[in-house]
Amino acid sequence: MAYCENGFRKAIQIGIVIRDIEEALNRWCKLLGIEKPRVIETEEWEKTKAMYMGVPTRGRAKLAFIDLDNITIELIQPIDGPSTWESQLSAYGQGVHHIAFVVKDADGCAKKLEGFGGIREQEGLFEGGRYIYVDLLKSLGVRVELLQFFK
Amino acid sequence: MAYCENGFRKAIQIGIVIRDIEEALNRWCKLLGIEKPRVIETEEWEKTKAMYMGVPTRGRAKLAFIDLDNITIELIQPIDGPSTWESQLSAYGQGVHHIAFVVKDADGCAKKLEGFGGIREQEGLFEGGRYIYVDLLKSLGVRVELLQFFK
Repeated sequence: MAYCENGFRKAIQIGIVIRDIEEALNRWCKLLGIEKPRVIETEEWEKTKAMYMGVPTRGRAKLAFIDLDNITIELIQPIDGPSTWESQLSAYGQGVHHIAFVVKDADGCAKKLEGFGGIREQEGLFEGGRYIYVDLLKSLGVRVELLQFFK
Repeated sequence: MAYCENGFRKAIQIGIVIRDIEEALNRWCKLLGIEKPRVIETEEWEKTKAMYMGVPTRGRAKLAFIDLDNITIELIQPIDGPSTWESQLSAYGQGVHHIAFVVKDADGCAKKLEGFGGIREQEGLFEGGRYIYVDLLKSLGVRVELLQFFK
């Protein structure tokens, strides 16, 4: 499954869950001396078909992307129903939620990661692609987001 | 303080605390299809002068560095006395501990980060440089490591 191994050579995002995205984004932008990027919201379930722990969920998030030179910081404020973001924020407070990798076959990659002790935790669609979060905290010490872009 | 702003444009390491570095490293290397890098240990207090929450500590760690294309994954297994690594592992289990940035003036940068709500948590020396961990979890959602290399 070479598509998957290649995919893991570059980490494209560090996702961070936070309580108030506007406040945190203001601080990040002031620290970096950059203009504030816009905050977007993930779409409704009818479009995302989001699943959390095997069950459809209306859990969504506000997102903002801060580009560093080599990687992007993704700020995530959970909104509405249950989600992996909301679950981590409730249990542990603000902190890094995942590291994202672009892969060619998210399903194949998720299966491979399940072989490394990963738990397929949440998944859904977004405009132009799909994502799967695989919880590998117990085996690799991190949660991985698999990002697959459609052509 | 331009040295500091420039420093934050590139994140060079993602630090992950884990219980058993050999096990986790084996899994990471198998997943990535790479040779296993060597595991090192941070030095004794007499060399590091490590301070944790303002008090000298004998807390150390086993470390391994896995180079991805754009960033390095640092695996950290706490050993011996109290440390920020040990504290996070006990409280939250395995997970991302910090994001590291190279800066020219770690002290100046730490002061700047304290202005953003940061707590100067742990610091010490290593061969050729020094580090300071600033806990910004409550304000930025992440702990930052400031790495300063001596010339």
